[in-house]
Amino acid sequence: MDKFSYLLPANAAGFKDRYVTKVTECISHYSTGIRGEIGLIGLPFSKSSISHSQAGEAPNTIRDCLSNITTYSGEWKMDFKDKMIVDFGNVAIHPINTEESLSRIYTSIKEIIDSKSCERYIMLGGDHGVSFPSIRAFQEKFGTIGVLQWDAHHDVRNLKDGGRTNGTPFRSLLEGRFVNGEHLVQIGIRDFSNSQEYHGYTKEKGITVYNMADVEQEGIVPLVKQEVERLSKEVDFIYLSVDMDVVDQAFAPGCPAIGPGGVTSRELLGSVAEAAKHKKVKALDIVEIDPSRDFRDMTSRLAAHVMLRFMYIK
Amino acid sequence: MDKFSYLLPANAAGFKDRYVTKVTECISHYSTGIRGEIGLIGLPFSKSSISHSQAGEAPNTIRDCLSNITTYSGEWKMDFKDKMIVDFGNVAIHPINTEESLSRIYTSIKEIIDSKSCERYIMLGGDHGVSFPSIRAFQEKFGTIGVLQWDAHHDVRNLKDGGRTNGTPFRSLLEGRFVNGEHLVQIGIRDFSNSQEYHGYTKEKGITVYNMADVEQEGIVPLVKQEVERLSKEVDFIYLSVDMDVVDQAFAPGCPAIGPGGVTSRELLGSVAEAAKHKKVKALDIVEIDPSRDFRDMTSRLAAHVMLRFMYIK
Amino acid sequence: MDKFSYLLPANAAGFKDRYVTKVTECISHYSTGIRGEIGLIGLPFSKSSISHSQAGEAPNTIRDCLSNITTYSGEWKMDFKDKMIVDFGNVAIHPINTEESLSRIYTSIKEIIDSKSCERYIMLGGDHGVSFPSIRAFQEKFGTIGVLQWDAHHDVRNLKDGGRTNGTPFRSLLEGRFVNGEHLVQIGIRDFSNSQEYHGYTKEKGITVYNMADVEQEGIVPLVKQEVERLSKEVDFIYLSVDMDVVDQAFAPGCPAIGPGGVTSRELLGSVAEAAKHKKVKALDIVEIDPSRDFRDMTSRLAAHVMLRFMYIK
Amino acid sequence: MDKFSYLLPANAAGFKDRYVTKVTECISHYSTGIRGEIGLIGLPFSKSSISHSQAGEAPNTIRDCLSNITTYSGEWKMDFKDKMIVDFGNVAIHPINTEESLSRIYTSIKEIIDSKSCERYIMLGGDHGVSFPSIRAFQEKFGTIGVLQWDAHHDVRNLKDGGRTNGTPFRSLLEGRFVNGEHLVQIGIRDFSNSQEYHGYTKEKGITVYNMADVEQEGIVPLVKQEVERLSKEVDFIYLSVDMDVVDQAFAPGCPAIGPGGVTSRELLGSVAEAAKHKKVKALDIVEIDPSRDFRDMTSRLAAHVMLRFMYIK
Amino acid sequence: MDKFSYLLPANAAGFKDRYVTKVTECISHYSTGIRGEIGLIGLPFSKSSISHSQAGEAPNTIRDCLSNITTYSGEWKMDFKDKMIVDFGNVAIHPINTEESLSRIYTSIKEIIDSKSCERYIMLGGDHGVSFPSIRAFQEKFGTIGVLQWDAHHDVRNLKDGGRTNGTPFRSLLEGRFVNGEHLVQIGIRDFSNSQEYHGYTKEKGITVYNMADVEQEGIVPLVKQEVERLSKEVDFIYLSVDMDVVDQAFAPGCPAIGPGGVTSRELLGSVAEAAKHKKVKALDIVEIDPSRDFRDMTSRLAAHVMLRFMYIK
Amino acid sequence: MDKFSYLLPANAAGFKDRYVTKVTECISHYSTGIRGEIGLIGLPFSKSSISHSQAGEAPNTIRDCLSNITTYSGEWKMDFKDKMIVDFGNVAIHPINTEESLSRIYTSIKEIIDSKSCERYIMLGGDHGVSFPSIRAFQEKFGTIGVLQWDAHHDVRNLKDGGRTNGTPFRSLLEGRFVNGEHLVQIGIRDFSNSQEYHGYTKEKGITVYNMADVEQEGIVPLVKQEVERLSKEVDFIYLSVDMDVVDQAFAPGCPAIGPGGVTSRELLGSVAEAAKHKKVKALDIVEIDPSRDFRDMTSRLAAHVMLRFMYIK
Ligand SMILES: [Ca+2]
Ligand SMILES: [Ca+2]
Ligand SMILES: [Ca+2]
Ligand SMILES: [Ca+2]
Ligand SMILES: [Ca+2]
Ligand SMILES: [Ca+2]
Ligand SMILES: [Ca+2]
Ligand SMILES: [Ca+2]
Ligand SMILES: [Ca+2]
Ligand SMILES: [Ca+2]
Ligand SMILES: [Ca+2]
Ligand SMILES: [Ca+2]
Repeated sequence: MDKFSYLLPANAAGFKDRYVTKVTECISHYSTGIRGEIGLIGLPFSKSSISHSQAGEAPNTIRDCLSNITTYSGEWKMDFKDKMIVDFGNVAIHPINTEESLSRIYTSIKEIIDSKSCERYIMLGGDHGVSFPSIRAFQEKFGTIGVLQWDAHHDVRNLKDGGRTNGTPFRSLLEGRFVNGEHLVQIGIRDFSNSQEYHGYTKEKGITVYNMADVEQEGIVPLVKQEVERLSKEVDFIYLSVDMDVVDQAFAPGCPAIGPGGVTSRELLGSVAEAAKHKKVKALDIVEIDPSRDFRDMTSRLAAHVMLRFMYIK
Repeated sequence: MDKFSYLLPANAAGFKDRYVTKVTECISHYSTGIRGEIGLIGLPFSKSSISHSQAGEAPNTIRDCLSNITTYSGEWKMDFKDKMIVDFGNVAIHPINTEESLSRIYTSIKEIIDSKSCERYIMLGGDHGVSFPSIRAFQEKFGTIGVLQWDAHHDVRNLKDGGRTNGTPFRSLLEGRFVNGEHLVQIGIRDFSNSQEYHGYTKEKGITVYNMADVEQEGIVPLVKQEVERLSKEVDFIYLSVDMDVVDQAFAPGCPAIGPGGVTSRELLGSVAEAAKHKKVKALDIVEIDPSRDFRDMTSRLAAHVMLRFMYIK
Repeated sequence: MDKFSYLLPANAAGFKDRYVTKVTECISHYSTGIRGEIGLIGLPFSKSSISHSQAGEAPNTIRDCLSNITTYSGEWKMDFKDKMIVDFGNVAIHPINTEESLSRIYTSIKEIIDSKSCERYIMLGGDHGVSFPSIRAFQEKFGTIGVLQWDAHHDVRNLKDGGRTNGTPFRSLLEGRFVNGEHLVQIGIRDFSNSQEYHGYTKEKGITVYNMADVEQEGIVPLVKQEVERLSKEVDFIYLSVDMDVVDQAFAPGCPAIGPGGVTSRELLGSVAEAAKHKKVKALDIVEIDPSRDFRDMTSRLAAHVMLRFMYIK
Repeated sequence: MDKFSYLLPANAAGFKDRYVTKVTECISHYSTGIRGEIGLIGLPFSKSSISHSQAGEAPNTIRDCLSNITTYSGEWKMDFKDKMIVDFGNVAIHPINTEESLSRIYTSIKEIIDSKSCERYIMLGGDHGVSFPSIRAFQEKFGTIGVLQWDAHHDVRNLKDGGRTNGTPFRSLLEGRFVNGEHLVQIGIRDFSNSQEYHGYTKEKGITVYNMADVEQEGIVPLVKQEVERLSKEVDFIYLSVDMDVVDQAFAPGCPAIGPGGVTSRELLGSVAEAAKHKKVKALDIVEIDPSRDFRDMTSRLAAHVMLRFMYIK
Repeated sequence: MDKFSYLLPANAAGFKDRYVTKVTECISHYSTGIRGEIGLIGLPFSKSSISHSQAGEAPNTIRDCLSNITTYSGEWKMDFKDKMIVDFGNVAIHPINTEESLSRIYTSIKEIIDSKSCERYIMLGGDHGVSFPSIRAFQEKFGTIGVLQWDAHHDVRNLKDGGRTNGTPFRSLLEGRFVNGEHLVQIGIRDFSNSQEYHGYTKEKGITVYNMADVEQEGIVPLVKQEVERLSKEVDFIYLSVDMDVVDQAFAPGCPAIGPGGVTSRELLGSVAEAAKHKKVKALDIVEIDPSRDFRDMTSRLAAHVMLRFMYIK
Repeated sequence: MDKFSYLLPANAAGFKDRYVTKVTECISHYSTGIRGEIGLIGLPFSKSSISHSQAGEAPNTIRDCLSNITTYSGEWKMDFKDKMIVDFGNVAIHPINTEESLSRIYTSIKEIIDSKSCERYIMLGGDHGVSFPSIRAFQEKFGTIGVLQWDAHHDVRNLKDGGRTNGTPFRSLLEGRFVNGEHLVQIGIRDFSNSQEYHGYTKEKGITVYNMADVEQEGIVPLVKQEVERLSKEVDFIYLSVDMDVVDQAFAPGCPAIGPGGVTSRELLGSVAEAAKHKKVKALDIVEIDPSRDFRDMTSRLAAHVMLRFMYIK
């Protein structure tokens, strides 16, 4: 708007300090031929949630939080302002047909991978139902896949009682043979939040489960480090799936299924950063944030920092 | 994003009905050579408020409300989807220097008028302090100006006790001879919300004042009709300034200075629509909404409907 | 709990005045052979909503409001404590399959009618999507049906763009020939909330539409009276469908699609009471309340009073 | 604080316009020998409430609202800044012993009347339980007393089921012969909020009852005018008791027992102003506001305006 | 409801996974002859609170939280779905007479113990005032009693200044010789939350006090273990009294007297689980949660997990 | 109010326990000749904030929190009720002129120091902009000054882009040579919250910076102890500046710039207590709390406890 002295686009930040770069400034919308290090995709889908959820609003809320976060790490003395992030926008969700929506997510992620424009990908959910089509798409494109799942819950419910809800993504992935049980690691599983049957199912399928007692005793960072190393020898590609309800309700008050006794913010950030260091780790999803129930976007802001620990590696 | 089957830009509405046009779809960002019927300018300025106010957030909140409002009037059986609205964005406000900010508003509005791209203008405040530079700019461009002010308050405070706050815009306009007292009409002035001195000042300057008792007895629509007719004979240009606190707290709970005994939503919408019919009415500002204190954006949504009654005339 | 001196069931009201009867005390859960004047059915379904909605929580919230409302009308000097209300509970909604859920609603209402236990029925939604299976079931059981719809919206969207959402129930009813356009009356339709195409559709189908200007000019009570009389000559059965967003946002702040310029609480209560007087009026649904967004259950409490005006007739 | 250039007491308003007087500036704390027109007493008592209530916080919240209200009426062109208000503070309530608290209220009001420092009195509750000791004290000091009660409820519950709760003050006054049934007028009684037994009791005792249908048909102002005139011939002293739940929930969202279909703000303010004109009207209580459940102190602000209509008479 | 295909009772959970058992499913309402391991009693009493409190609503809120918690511990690999919980309901509280209410609590607990239907008991408060009649009843039935009190406060205020408030239960128990000072252990006492006099009183009476500095240095679990062992040699029966304000405000934001510097959720859960292991530990009360001031029932949910750690022992 | 048996001043606490002293009871308003140990000054200034902030309301909110905090430390077995606190009130802030406001703060603090009435001073902000005039005033009165700054941010932004905002106080102090870079210590600086340029600036100026990784590794208490010792040898006077956003968002949810990964409440309280032990530490400011965005005044309450750790030293 060159002919106007002071006009800014609506929604632009009102104040700009010339010496500060915000993460938002490093994001470009996708256009043909663009190349970036990180691809960002919003999956505003929450109609598969068993309980009411507006998790579908989270992709935009998390993006908004990036406008208050800078690109500089004082601890590492590194500025990441040159890392380009390509935003592919949000997958258009069908208002009522969940199978159609899951299919659109699957197709979109495959098309995005096919664009070969980025090296790593971040999927912003949505409820945990999005991980089934997302992980499936990556598996089909990249080969054997290992998955680290931060979660209070196993998410291996039977499909008969309610169809493909947000309680079933890993069941669907295992049954469809997109992921092998030995290549799935669940971290932060909480007592009195799951059932004996489903715990039994994880054992039967060879899933590696670390509950909160394990996390407290062994430390979440060493535990993640060891599993990433193990997986890296067995798979072609590692995918991180972060269900924010792994975090204690005091630190992540905006998840649909909040509860006490979970991991702290620091434990989540430290462990994701540890995993992100490995070259085979190439995709991340963040799910189960309902901004309408959060307090001052605390949970979305924490999610934005999870993104940073994945994107900005030492 | 042609190569992707289902991707929408972040923040785009997820669902589109092919037979429904939302007001937002009729808005174009300014670009050189563009022509439209309505020019829209955001004035995100609220640091001149005597009490704490985040009215500076209202321009974007009101814009957001337009995405849920359609262009069709069933009462008039008219669709306004062909009326183009040009959005000039927001004036960049200085973080702490209010005189500088007032000056930027003044300059920006002059530059926008100079672009000759629109026929009518809507300024979205901000606090009422924005009306001083805005009305001054219009006066200097268009000649003698008449002003209809919907407000619970006279806004003619002395300038010594606090400088050019949001309690002073009409004092500044009168003292600067940008508006003549005979050409200022105040509607909806409320008891126990003003002082004897300032009421005296309005009398002395020849301002026409209608308090709530007048509104109840005469009806707000006939009263506005009569004043627009009178003004139209005396001035070159009529400017509407709507301080949303003219409305009762039950209908506009998000104003900084809410109170009981004000006009209803219908009275506000009806009277603005009546004024907007006259050809000399060419500018509107809407001020004093603090979205951070509103309930479900009720007050911003009402403001969006005020915009419509000004834009879409029978 | 005869052996305990002071124990009450959990969730029972702590205080009971022997001379006051609350509506809740007149409600019995369905059991075989029971007879009552009013049948109450909850339809906790809101996954067909275009925008996020927790309207599925409303049936229980409205029921809770009945525990603070008494059975006595001082205006009529009548006590209705002997009118028995049979609560059939809530239809079990499928977590993700909306067609399945609509089918369960349809089947349940037919089964309830078949039980022949009640004279009139109240369906508590849920979003407006529930009216399609509900009205269809009544039509199939009782013959030609007339519908009075209180609503800001026509709800005749096309079915292609999103399937059978809460914007489509009357389209589905008309296309399926369950309701004849001449037998559908829409009251309180609001400007800038609908589209020209759909307004055209209502004309084409012969639907009678009263917009807010009509309501203001003719008065909602006479208008309803006249239409009930007309319909009663043409149909076997009259069904009232109350979308609470017909009410102004100041009086019903908990609807998903709130807006200014709607009817007042008194206009809603008075007009439902007027309609309920007619013997052919035998069913009522109340929809589009999202308790999670309401203020102190205002909208559910108003809905509970709508129930009363339907149940308790002079 | 003469030696400091800019210091103000903590809690003082930060900004003062030399030409504006706020009601707060006209309030003096009681000291021996002081004389004023209005005496103000806080009764922060709500442990007699049947349902949970923090109405005990209202006296201070209402006082706070006076700091944003001026002394000038533009409608009457009168400034009331010379009317002195004497604030006697709040009665110390016993933490758990309600009979002791009622007794302290009774004693305090008698002592205040004995101080002969004021002409009229305003009691700020608290729940409606405060009216029993308050009215009793006035009766014992001033002779035969007439009471106008704005209320959705009769408040004549039996004393056996829960003792002297906020549902019983007028029962206690009648049984104790402090008020004669013929001298009690109830205005705004609402349907489905009372019981047949208690309605019968009001008839038996000769209480005059105007329900909402009466208010709608006759108009609240003429109705109040007529009753004040009648009472003035029969009693020595008239006491106004305003239970804020007489107001519709949209206008007074902070009462414990909110509901739809009540009077509007304007109806309340107009009718209190009408009553206050009469010389025999010398006391006012305002009760049943729970600030913890209000929205932006709307209900307390309305109560402050009720005070003004009582204090500032033409 | 056998004749209906899809109907569920109102308030029933909408979705049931056949392989998951919720704690709620293990609860039966008391009926004659019933036997269970845990007896549950609600004490919805908060009128003894010095400050305003709606703690009386907590018993039902905590019960509601149990519907989202399962019976399975993955850490112990144990499912507790066969432990039967008998719900005796809530004690009917008198609306205004606190001594009467305390007496009803005392009588009810004695009657429940006399029913000999359960092995352990959980009392859900209510404010801390409920512990006086509750502990007294257990002492009179079971002999010498030891009490572990988790609390930020000593709760030994004098009885003259306000009677038997929620600040006095342990004073009442000591003065009445129901508990011996040597058998009372206070854990988590916080600085700047008590007074020198009352600290002196605890010393004088021989109460064992662990403040937050002790908790930080020695660890809450070893400290509880050691005291349970000591007490078990000296008493017949151990009672746990958990005032939730022992927890830091970040983890338990819904207590009336929140503050910083308290124990974490994990410290509370771990220490209650440690105590619950001992066979002499047979009763638990949980008090001082005001659901109306909580955020998303965080504090009630934490309380529900405290219940689990007491009920479900390895 | 000797002639009245039960009256308390409005706003007085309703209940007083004779054996408990609240901090509020130890506060006297300034009057000539008064002497105290602690001087308290409110700086209700937040118009220099880059983002919207009502931090100007914090001084009064923090004071209110002191009414629920006692003077007794059980850990130290010390009662501080004899430490007199002198409250100088709040500096009158100009409604719109920030330079004028900064100048008034500067002048007021100098005048207060000149009154020689206190030994230590607590300044309650307001935004961090207040520290520039405050520290400057102390420096000019007391000589070489050392500053410990708890903060997530460096606050050394350039002055050209927005003037003297709350992002610049330490830049202003360094450029004005009021503080020497070697005498400024920043604790708790957070990653992705600052920029490379400004980090470089701190290095260049010789500022000592401890980021969160340092805090985690070395422990905040030893680190503060070591820096206070170092500074005490180089300066005449040590000033503590506590920006509450150094605390994690879970523990201090009311700061304008909240974020995850900060210090805990205990880390803040422990480290301030450690610093306060040194005799040269004589001033404290607490800034960046916006009470309008807090949850139940958690952040102000934590700030009140920071005051206590500074005032009440072993
Ligand atoms: Ca999950
Ligand atoms: Ca989960
Ligand atoms: Ca104004
Ligand atoms: Ca105004
Ligand atoms: Ca509808
Ligand atoms: Ca509608
Ligand atoms: Ca009453
Ligand atoms: Ca009432
Ligand atoms: Ca306690
Ligand atoms: Ca306590
Ligand atoms: Ca800072
Ligand atoms: Ca900071």
